[in-house]
Amino acid sequence: MKPILLLLSLTILSGVGAAEIDRAQLALFGKLPAEWPNPANPATPEKIALGRMLYFEPRLSLSQEISCNSCHGLSSFGVDGKAFSDGHAGHKTGRNSPTVFNAAGHLAQFWDGRAADVEAQAKGPILAGGEMAMPDEAYVIKVLKSIPGYPPHFAAAFPGEKDPVTYDNVAKAIGAFERKLSTPSRFDDYLGGKEDALNADEKRGLAKFLSTGCTTCHNGPMVGGLLYQKVGLVKPWPFLNDEGRSKISGNPAEKGFFKVPSLRNIAETSPYFHDGSVNSLEIAVALMAEYQLGRQLPTEDVADIATFLRSLTGRVDAVYVEAPALPESGPTTPAPKHD
Amino acid sequence: MKPILLLLSLTILSGVGAAEIDRAQLALFGKLPAEWPNPANPATPEKIALGRMLYFEPRLSLSQEISCNSCHGLSSFGVDGKAFSDGHAGHKTGRNSPTVFNAAGHLAQFWDGRAADVEAQAKGPILAGGEMAMPDEAYVIKVLKSIPGYPPHFAAAFPGEKDPVTYDNVAKAIGAFERKLSTPSRFDDYLGGKEDALNADEKRGLAKFLSTGCTTCHNGPMVGGLLYQKVGLVKPWPFLNDEGRSKISGNPAEKGFFKVPSLRNIAETSPYFHDGSVNSLEIAVALMAEYQLGRQLPTEDVADIATFLRSLTGRVDAVYVEAPALPESGPTTPAPKHD
Repeated sequence: MKPILLLLSLTILSGVGAAEIDRAQLALFGKLPAEWPNPANPATPEKIALGRMLYFEPRLSLSQEISCNSCHGLSSFGVDGKAFSDGHAGHKTGRNSPTVFNAAGHLAQFWDGRAADVEAQAKGPILAGGEMAMPDEAYVIKVLKSIPGYPPHFAAAFPGEKDPVTYDNVAKAIGAFERKLSTPSRFDDYLGGKEDALNADEKRGLAKFLSTGCTTCHNGPMVGGLLYQKVGLVKPWPFLNDEGRSKISGNPAEKGFFKVPSLRNIAETSPYFHDGSVNSLEIAVALMAEYQLGRQLPTEDVADIATFLRSLTGRVDAVYVEAPALPESGPTTPAPKHD
Repeated sequence: MKPILLLLSLTILSGVGAAEIDRAQLALFGKLPAEWPNPANPATPEKIALGRMLYFEPRLSLSQEISCNSCHGLSSFGVDGKAFSDGHAGHKTGRNSPTVFNAAGHLAQFWDGRAADVEAQAKGPILAGGEMAMPDEAYVIKVLKSIPGYPPHFAAAFPGEKDPVTYDNVAKAIGAFERKLSTPSRFDDYLGGKEDALNADEKRGLAKFLSTGCTTCHNGPMVGGLLYQKVGLVKPWPFLNDEGRSKISGNPAEKGFFKVPSLRNIAETSPYFHDGSVNSLEIAVALMAEYQLGRQLPTEDVADIATFLRSLTGRVDAVYVEAPALPESGPTTPAPKHD
C-alpha cells in the first residue's frame, strides 16, 4: 500500500501547493484592450484632451463643486470609496458609484445598463437632480460658452461643426476620453504567456476562481461587465430594496438583476455591490460563492481567490489621471448655486 | 381533515403575523441605565462639564485637529461612519471606532477589552502615535496648563487637590462625562411594560432575535458588551488577520475573540465588526447567524431581526451632544505639529 499512499500524498500536496491551470480555460478571459474605440465617435488627441478637461470640470455641476472625477476619482482607481456618493446639496446617490476604469468595455453602462455606452452615460449625472443637478442641457451649454477657453477646444475637437459646443459633443468628448481608461495588470502578462507574471499563490487563487465557478459571470477581458445577473441567484440576498434591471427593461423576470461588475482593480474599489454594502474583499467573495453559486467556501479558498483578485489591480496611465488645467470663468459665467 | 387543515393554517398565520414573546424571556435584557456611576470617580456637574470640554478638545492631539469627538462623534451616534478612523498624519486606526454611547456599561473597553473602564480607555488614544499622537503625559499637561481657561475648570472639578491638572484627572473627567452617555429607546419602554412601544413588525423581529439564538451573546441592558466571543464561532470567518483578545490576555484559546458589541443604536453605527468590513445591517445579521450560530436565515427573518434592531436606536440627550465653547490658547500654548 505504501506507494499508493505516497502517490496520494503527492497528489494532495500538489493540489494545495501548485496550481494546475489548463491554459485552454484562460480563453474565458482575454487580454484587456488598450482602448475601446467607437466608430461613431472617433478619438482625436483634441477630443480626448477636451474630454479630460470636462471630466474634471466642476462647473458642469450647479454647485460648481462636483465633477465626474468627484465620484469616479481617477487617482483612486475610478471610485470615491463611499457606499453612496455625495451629490448636489447633501443628496446621496441611490447606488454605489462604479469605477470608470475599463467601463467602456462593458455591455452597457450603469448598474442596470440603462445607458448603451460611455457617451450616453456621461449625459446622465450632469442633469440628475441629486447628482450634478444642472437644470437642463441649455444651461450646461450656457455655462460652457461663458468660459472663454472652452469654445476653441470644442472647435478643435469637432472640426467643421458650425456650433460645436453642444451637449452631444460634451458627451462625445468625455466618452472619447473614457475609452482610453484601460488598466492592464500582471494578469494580462500572464494571459499573454508570461508564466511567472503571477506567483504561485495567485495561480492557486486563479485555479480556485475557475473551479469554484466564478467565471460563470466574471469572464471576458474585464473579468465581468458582460452580462446581467440576479443578486442572490441560488439563495435570496439578505437585503434587496432595488428592482435593478427590471425597472429599465420592463421584464419582471429581471427583478434584482444587475450588471455583473468587472473585477479589474477590485481590491482598490471597495465598498462592493450595487449598494456598497460590503467593505471586505474576502467577505464579498464568501457571499458571492454562497448566494450566487451555492458554495460554502473554506476560508483558505476565500483567501486564495482574494489573492488572485489582487493581481487584477492594474497599471494606471498617469497621462490621463493627472488633473488638467481648466480655463477661467468669464464675466457671464453663472454663480454657483447650492440648493 | 378540514378542521385540522384550518387549525394548521391558523397556526402558520399566527406564527408569521403576531409575535409570541414570553415576557419572562425579556429578563435576558434589562432596561438601559440612565448612567453608569463609578464610586472611584464620583460625578459632579463641574467634572462632567470639564469632561465634555476635553471630549471635544482638539488640542489633546499633536495636530490640534483630532478630538475624542472626531472618531466618536456625538452628533452621529458616537461614531464616524468609517471602517477605520483617521488618526495623526494620515494614519488609519487598526480597528473600527466603536460608539461611545452606552460604552460605560461594557465589561471592559476597546474591541479586545484592554482597558478596564472608560477612564482607562480615555488615556489610550491621546498618546497613541497613529491616533492623537501626543508624545507623553507631560506634554498633554503642558498644553492644558498653557490654556488659561483650563486650570480653573480642573480646580472646580477636583476640589482640594493641590495640582489638579493631571493626566489621571483628564481621564477621570472624560470618563465621568462618558458615564452619562446613555441612549434609552422604545425598546426600554417595551421592557418596562408598555406593550405598544414596539410595533408588530418589531415584536416579530424580537421574537426571531430570541428564537434564532442571538441572545447567546447579545444580552443584558446594552444587548451586548458583556462578554468576549470568537468571530467565526461555528464556521471560520472569511477574513481574520487580527488576533483580538489573545494578544492581550496571552491565552491562545482566545485567538480571534473580540468583545461582543452592543446592538444599541446599531442601525446608525455602520460599518460593522472590528474591521468595519460590512456596511449593511441585513448582511451583518445574515453573517452573524451563519458564522456564529450555524443558521441559514430566510430573508424575511433577516429583515424582521433588522427591523427589531432599528428599535434600539435611542434618544440622545442634547445636553451632552452639543459642542461646548472651549477656552482660548495662551501665549505658551505649543503650535500644532503635523508629523
